[in-house]
Amino acid sequence: MSQYKAPLRDLEYVRHELLNVDAFHASNPQWSEITNDLSNAILEECAKFCENVIAPLNSVGDQQGCTLKDGQVKTPDGFKEAYQQFVEGGWPALDGTEEFGGQGLPKTLVLAATEMTGTANWAWSMYPGLSNGACHTIAEHGTDEQKETYLHKLTEGSWTGTMCLTEPHCGSDLGLLRTKAEPNNDGSYSISGTKIFISSGDHDMAENIVHIVLARLPDAPKGTKGISLFIIPKFNVNADGSVGERNAVECGSLEHKMGIHGNATCVMNFDGAKGYLIGPENRGLNCMFTFMNIARIGTAIQGLAHAELSYQNSLAYAEERLAMRSLSGAKAPDKAADPIIVHPDVRRMLLTQKAFSEGGRMMIYYMALLSDLSAQAKDSEEKEGYENLLATLTPIAKAFMTETGFEAANLGLQIFGGHGYIQEWGMEQNVRDSRIAMLYEGTTGIQSLDLLGRKIIMTGGKLLQDLINPISKFCDNTDSEEMAEFIDPLKTLLAEWQTLTEKIGASAMNNADEVNAACVDYLMYSGYVLYAFMFARSAKISKAKLAEGTTEQEFYDAKVYLARFYFQRLLPRTASLAITMTSGVKNLLDDAVNPF
Amino acid sequence: MSQYKAPLRDLEYVRHELLNVDAFHASNPQWSEITNDLSNAILEECAKFCENVIAPLNSVGDQQGCTLKDGQVKTPDGFKEAYQQFVEGGWPALDGTEEFGGQGLPKTLVLAATEMTGTANWAWSMYPGLSNGACHTIAEHGTDEQKETYLHKLTEGSWTGTMCLTEPHCGSDLGLLRTKAEPNNDGSYSISGTKIFISSGDHDMAENIVHIVLARLPDAPKGTKGISLFIIPKFNVNADGSVGERNAVECGSLEHKMGIHGNATCVMNFDGAKGYLIGPENRGLNCMFTFMNIARIGTAIQGLAHAELSYQNSLAYAEERLAMRSLSGAKAPDKAADPIIVHPDVRRMLLTQKAFSEGGRMMIYYMALLSDLSAQAKDSEEKEGYENLLATLTPIAKAFMTETGFEAANLGLQIFGGHGYIQEWGMEQNVRDSRIAMLYEGTTGIQSLDLLGRKIIMTGGKLLQDLINPISKFCDNTDSEEMAEFIDPLKTLLAEWQTLTEKIGASAMNNADEVNAACVDYLMYSGYVLYAFMFARSAKISKAKLAEGTTEQEFYDAKVYLARFYFQRLLPRTASLAITMTSGVKNLLDDAVNPF
Repeated sequence: MSQYKAPLRDLEYVRHELLNVDAFHASNPQWSEITNDLSNAILEECAKFCENVIAPLNSVGDQQGCTLKDGQVKTPDGFKEAYQQFVEGGWPALDGTEEFGGQGLPKTLVLAATEMTGTANWAWSMYPGLSNGACHTIAEHGTDEQKETYLHKLTEGSWTGTMCLTEPHCGSDLGLLRTKAEPNNDGSYSISGTKIFISSGDHDMAENIVHIVLARLPDAPKGTKGISLFIIPKFNVNADGSVGERNAVECGSLEHKMGIHGNATCVMNFDGAKGYLIGPENRGLNCMFTFMNIARIGTAIQGLAHAELSYQNSLAYAEERLAMRSLSGAKAPDKAADPIIVHPDVRRMLLTQKAFSEGGRMMIYYMALLSDLSAQAKDSEEKEGYENLLATLTPIAKAFMTETGFEAANLGLQIFGGHGYIQEWGMEQNVRDSRIAMLYEGTTGIQSLDLLGRKIIMTGGKLLQDLINPISKFCDNTDSEEMAEFIDPLKTLLAEWQTLTEKIGASAMNNADEVNAACVDYLMYSGYVLYAFMFARSAKISKAKLAEGTTEQEFYDAKVYLARFYFQRLLPRTASLAITMTSGVKNLLDDAVNPF
Repeated sequence: MSQYKAPLRDLEYVRHELLNVDAFHASNPQWSEITNDLSNAILEECAKFCENVIAPLNSVGDQQGCTLKDGQVKTPDGFKEAYQQFVEGGWPALDGTEEFGGQGLPKTLVLAATEMTGTANWAWSMYPGLSNGACHTIAEHGTDEQKETYLHKLTEGSWTGTMCLTEPHCGSDLGLLRTKAEPNNDGSYSISGTKIFISSGDHDMAENIVHIVLARLPDAPKGTKGISLFIIPKFNVNADGSVGERNAVECGSLEHKMGIHGNATCVMNFDGAKGYLIGPENRGLNCMFTFMNIARIGTAIQGLAHAELSYQNSLAYAEERLAMRSLSGAKAPDKAADPIIVHPDVRRMLLTQKAFSEGGRMMIYYMALLSDLSAQAKDSEEKEGYENLLATLTPIAKAFMTETGFEAANLGLQIFGGHGYIQEWGMEQNVRDSRIAMLYEGTTGIQSLDLLGRKIIMTGGKLLQDLINPISKFCDNTDSEEMAEFIDPLKTLLAEWQTLTEKIGASAMNNADEVNAACVDYLMYSGYVLYAFMFARSAKISKAKLAEGTTEQEFYDAKVYLARFYFQRLLPRTASLAITMTSGVKNLLDDAVNPF
């Protein structure tokens, strides 16, 4: 069984030292009370819940899974009680506006709680995670009445939410969806159709479940421009806000999945279920993007979560397990063999996991800060700047963090040798759980197309420039000899990134398929460069702390060391990606040859 | 459920066209009758068994797993009957000497059967696979009496074998093992200890199971030089060769594993079990290397198997599944959307799987031919040449093919999108099954140390030169403009490979840990170069076929295309590996910093 210890010092480092969120909070009336001490106190409480309540349920969830009986899903032992405790602690309400009972805390704080619950028990954390997306969607697109009806309950957590997009024949291509919505006389709609892969679709943890569902109105245009968004509660809601009769929506079956067994992945049957239009007719996909963007950042956190869990557990194992002597001479001569942590290749696997975890953490809170900055922006131009940056970072974070999270999970398993393949250690569960993250909320391929096609090339490279500018500025402001080992390669990469983008952009003018042929390598390249930016910032700050004198020398030494490891052992992967991404579409698609 | 169709044409291509095994067989009295037609006929029969009998049991094995009741393991439904059919068909006896009922066929033929059974159902194929290793060990190191007692039964398949090395506290470092062997008065030994991770350790498919077990004699030297090898049958064998009383060896429990559920992975308890020394006292590890080298090549095939199964199934899905339009315009305008195979990124994933499958196939039969050449060598010098080459290729094939096999299995799952994560399609099983291959029979790290430390650096680079020579020669003999796209990069890589080796060798003179710090990247680099050699050969042969005129133009066009894809999309990974492998041990291990 894997163990989890919340990395509170690392969270503090990223939030307060790297991103200096305190200064930002102090300058904002809404958050001026959110001091370092207060946020640390909140996160310490959250850490206790994660370590003591839900982490021990992680393997229980995997082994028991969810069960379906008489149309009702039962979650694994302890899940319901843990959720009750979560609600009583007020945790669902960290986020959400005060009007509906939320605390409206900054995202840099809210996502730290998300990271911890997710790392402790990803499958469990998906129940409140999806609710959060439903909340935001209703808050942004719902009518006042809809907000009043649903947001109080969702914010306090007594009800949960879902996101119903996928159908058996369509996932990435939602334009093909068939679920129908027929208007009723009372302004509501009757919705019929089958949705699959609905995470947290049904369960026994909340009084009601609020489904956010994509469907087509009669005579709607074909494709993505004929999709509308609906709220469909599991139980109809009475005029007084209480839970009423059962609606015609039911979990038809549970999927048998590779992992995340503790989360109920449901086939949901809507059989003339009563629903309510949210947002304008035929603009459902646009409204759903609110949900999807939140879900994508949530899924990016999943990459970080599995990397962190993998790192913590394989580190503990590597310090205990004895095998062979160090090639440079015995390191534990009093023992039968050296602990495997002395072997450089084992350290390579540990440091890779650590770099993907810490790099991901810096990336996530950087994005969280952008979101907070956007929320507090003085004008629409400033807001747009932050939003654009966030929009470009989202597909990179989602795909890059989940790909590297899966790699990290596998390296953690690898350190355990044959034991990693056995259930009892929890490492193989971590690999299985992490594998979904590259699929749901848009595959790596879909994120890559979004990044390179829609965000970069269709804006003529403007959004890339927005991404590069702060990094360039950082490089210009960090022109010391001591930082040259980080700044020089980073500068070179920024130039190369632009050249590669121009090259692909030019070839795409002749053949649009060039975008699809380059996109995944391009996204991964972008991810490595962005992490390099994060690690360079971390090295700069840690070097400054060491220079000014600190009682935590080991801590800051380790940060500088990890940055160097990243630059020397992981960042060079860009060299191969630069070659392959510009190798052209012809080696993938050539009308003259059928290669299969 | 995944489907399997044996790639008979591809096997023919590699065996007969690429490696020209017929000419070699014709020149050897022992194999002169093994014509192209005969071997194709044998493989066609084997293909039927694999496609119709064991492939359908692949998902059954995963879902049912093995069960242990009253000390006896039961295999999944159908496994026993399939094995019976396998024995009746004479398939276990393809290999093995004629003296004990074997057909003594060349390895290029035997391994083709291994590839097919393994791809159809890896977990099932491990039962006969381990027997084969036990056979070879007894044939090479056993006394005449031992051969007479065990080899007839093992060769015909009525008995099976196992390999008992690992103990709870030691796997990679067998020097630590504790199982004890006390001599009895009758020349036998009483063996006591616990072995774990014993594949096929117990089951209900054969009359008897012959365990090949590592244990320590009383007063044996510590470490690896005090280990001896024993034969321990599940049932003692009577003087007339029949199965006698139960021996004191029992399966204590079955491991709960990530995958290969159909194979019984047993904890084996030896409680004064009667055993027989095989080979000299205290030289057990050397004798066991016979078994381990065979098992390593067998495991290398596992990488190919999962890549092939993944490719076949994801190709079929990509041709059917509709999603989105090609960026360069609709390709199936009559359908609601284009089949996803039109998207270059999907093709990239398909071609990567295909390249790892076909590259692995070329590698395996190249090694099989070296083994056959060694068996028929005219003198010891010639034999040593082949054996050395094979010894150097074995760790590369084992680690590189299983790492790329796992990558391929994951790409296959990825093509299915969310459906890939669901049990019913069989893709997630394929990923889980493939994951063990990087662990057992020596992890990727252990193979890499063996390659770079023991094989390359400790021979002063001699074995690398042996590896490079035939490739250099091939390049010199292929100096045409048409082949320049393959030969030029290959030549550059050969030079770089030597430079990198010298550089690491030089730094290892100062610090032996440099070997451990570079080894995995070095092994992966070596694997990419060797596959480049294979694909260059394939391109040359296919181009020649196309030039001379063929009715199979599509087939040969596809081979040239895949070689080009490999050179342009996968081989550039060497660029990053060259940088990271020479980045030095200091970014992994620095006495001044604790990075964890």
